[in-house]
Amino acid sequence: MTQLEWLSASDAAQGIRDGLFDAEQLAQACLERIRQTEDQVQAWQHLDEAHALAQARARDADRREGRAMGPLHGVPVGLKDIIDTLDMPTEDGTVLHAGRMAGRDAAVVAKLRAAGAVILGKTVTTELATYAAGKTRNPHDPSRTPGGSSSGSAAAVAAGMVPLALGTQTNGSVIRPAAFCGVYGYKPSTGLVSRHGILKTSRTLDCVGWFARGLDDIALLAQALCGHDERDPDTRAMACPPFLRMLAEEPPLPPRFALVKTPMWGHADAATHEALAEVAEVLGEQCEEFNIGESVRAAWDWHRTIMEAEMAFNLEAEWTRGRDQLSTLLQQQLQRGREVTALDYQQSLARIPQLIDGFDELFQRFDAILTPAAPGSAPPLGSTGDPVFCTLWSLSGMPALNLPLLHASDNMPMGLQLVGRRGDDARLLRSARWLAARLQAA
Amino acid sequence: MTQLEWLSASDAAQGIRDGLFDAEQLAQACLERIRQTEDQVQAWQHLDEAHALAQARARDADRREGRAMGPLHGVPVGLKDIIDTLDMPTEDGTVLHAGRMAGRDAAVVAKLRAAGAVILGKTVTTELATYAAGKTRNPHDPSRTPGGSSSGSAAAVAAGMVPLALGTQTNGSVIRPAAFCGVYGYKPSTGLVSRHGILKTSRTLDCVGWFARGLDDIALLAQALCGHDERDPDTRAMACPPFLRMLAEEPPLPPRFALVKTPMWGHADAATHEALAEVAEVLGEQCEEFNIGESVRAAWDWHRTIMEAEMAFNLEAEWTRGRDQLSTLLQQQLQRGREVTALDYQQSLARIPQLIDGFDELFQRFDAILTPAAPGSAPPLGSTGDPVFCTLWSLSGMPALNLPLLHASDNMPMGLQLVGRRGDDARLLRSARWLAARLQAA
Repeated sequence: MTQLEWLSASDAAQGIRDGLFDAEQLAQACLERIRQTEDQVQAWQHLDEAHALAQARARDADRREGRAMGPLHGVPVGLKDIIDTLDMPTEDGTVLHAGRMAGRDAAVVAKLRAAGAVILGKTVTTELATYAAGKTRNPHDPSRTPGGSSSGSAAAVAAGMVPLALGTQTNGSVIRPAAFCGVYGYKPSTGLVSRHGILKTSRTLDCVGWFARGLDDIALLAQALCGHDERDPDTRAMACPPFLRMLAEEPPLPPRFALVKTPMWGHADAATHEALAEVAEVLGEQCEEFNIGESVRAAWDWHRTIMEAEMAFNLEAEWTRGRDQLSTLLQQQLQRGREVTALDYQQSLARIPQLIDGFDELFQRFDAILTPAAPGSAPPLGSTGDPVFCTLWSLSGMPALNLPLLHASDNMPMGLQLVGRRGDDARLLRSARWLAARLQAA
Repeated sequence: MTQLEWLSASDAAQGIRDGLFDAEQLAQACLERIRQTEDQVQAWQHLDEAHALAQARARDADRREGRAMGPLHGVPVGLKDIIDTLDMPTEDGTVLHAGRMAGRDAAVVAKLRAAGAVILGKTVTTELATYAAGKTRNPHDPSRTPGGSSSGSAAAVAAGMVPLALGTQTNGSVIRPAAFCGVYGYKPSTGLVSRHGILKTSRTLDCVGWFARGLDDIALLAQALCGHDERDPDTRAMACPPFLRMLAEEPPLPPRFALVKTPMWGHADAATHEALAEVAEVLGEQCEEFNIGESVRAAWDWHRTIMEAEMAFNLEAEWTRGRDQLSTLLQQQLQRGREVTALDYQQSLARIPQLIDGFDELFQRFDAILTPAAPGSAPPLGSTGDPVFCTLWSLSGMPALNLPLLHASDNMPMGLQLVGRRGDDARLLRSARWLAARLQAA
């Protein structure tokens, strides 16, 4: 039973299907790992061992009794604690929602259960998925932040507590913690995954994402979670991209990468600059550098205008009921959001299609954009780090991946972000696999 | 050739197909009628007789040479002068756009041309499709308004100048002029007809609509114009409702009507109150009265918040470039719109689905809502009349029809408005035909 907790989700599901071990043994291995490391990492907001094991035994009974087995059959998954679950509390990282029972499963949770997953528990989120940190620490160094807002999900996957965990991103809340914790993180294109049953902060920007220790697992979960849902009117009525099939393919031509330096380039530290330069060197002719300057400089302001205006709308009840129980930072954000005019808000929204059109031209010549995932490795506890390298891709709704392939001189993980054309998520994964192989061979 | 100008579009298209007359003769009859009455009515902003006749002759050549003929082959249509046309100016009712050539056809114009229609010319709109009146007068009494903002389109159809004309509605700009001019007017469900290439004032509320002298013609045009268009992301990816087929059917059961009195009921004059009471009496058991009071009282405020906030956004260029050339009324509206907060705006938008859900319950028991189209018959020139009886249906995006079946004691037309369930447009037309027959038999 040793090391089951470090298996990939794909291998774990295969092992259960093949009868090499069962879902209960896998769940036990993950729970044992949690017992060993949770004191240090503190990734979990809600964990009921008996309930987790009962789910695992039910999946084992499915197999014994010849019932249908889904692609995640018996695989433990962690959920950021803003994702509603019928059978566990969902407390949204705020005392205002302490003990909250949602009375329903979010759309993604229903899909996970249909695929056979074991919902292991709920992971720590920052306050209402914004900036004020929760209790979680970086598994690589407990004096540092795991990043946020999907803090517990990233840390749990990195610490070997669970092979898969769901988070959400509105600014940099998947890619940044993935980078700081050294795991794969994926934020799909806007509209691919339903947000029904998940705390709303920003209709325009909120996006479900997830963490894993390999690209196969990212694709496995994508195949299970994407799809139109009329309860989230922003999901698109399109077929799920062929993630698994494309990830298994060789690209017809070696992919081409654009190393994009935005006006925020200077926010990254020297180690990040050097690491990106080395990646570009390894890629040689397959990589071209672009400085995109003035045309996007205001995008960070557009993002803030939209995010804060929509947060003020979506968190109106919390503001009215318990403003004084919110962090000062969040109070300030909501106050600013309440002052945004409808004119500024609409003007900022109108920039998004223009931004996408601009990048679409780039994607006629390149398969993916290469960019830092964060300004550097994880900063000390307190802050959850700066999302500045994620903002542009959250705003434009383009798919983004963190590849945990770089390290700082002290061996802390550093993220490499890969961004794809909106809607072309499967190709992004295929390019990422090619890139990872190329860098590992170098 | 006498009286061709008074033919319905359906009969005119049939006559041309059958060779009873040709498109040129029909266009000549309409142009002759315009020559006789335009001095008094002033419905047209742009009319190039030679260009109109050239289109008609081209359609006649199609027939002679055996080319495909569309359902509107050879039928003259007028377009509100905010609908872009490649071959005519589109001046939007403001000196700021004088001489403007759009360089494209709006999506609905392309559909009209594909259906074989002859674009006769552009009809007078109020200033930027808002409130400040244009030159058009009511064909039934030149001292009165034709209503607005689709003033020229309603008046042209009423005066026998053209069998069909397109307008738009953001508050009451199709139903109100239809009522004042005594013609059928139809505002489809939100999302049925593309607004690509039409002046934008409010993304949420703007809606294409049209005028005709009979329900068959309303349906004929609906069948030609509805459909998804990716250039208007708010059009719905659904098949065009079966307008013509359902209009030809008998309802399986006699339709039931809800005479809905909103908090605005008192805005209507005594003649309107009496006329609605008489309609209810004729319908007997098929009609039930409802007072919907407090639950919708704020809806007129929500509508104003959304409309003015979105106008401020969409008319930003006009505000910046030529604020002093806008009417005082519009300047005031835009100033108010600029002051709306994003929070109020989003809260007002969030009311729309709640409103629709409420009415959906009513539509489980009733086929259509009966309500006045306007507070009374057309007021004197100056104002374009009060849209207060249209606001709720524009806000909720429900389909609405004006039936020109009522008259004031001085014989001026009075509108009867029929409102259907959102998306159930074809049933609304079928119910309207049943109602018209019942009232005409009484």
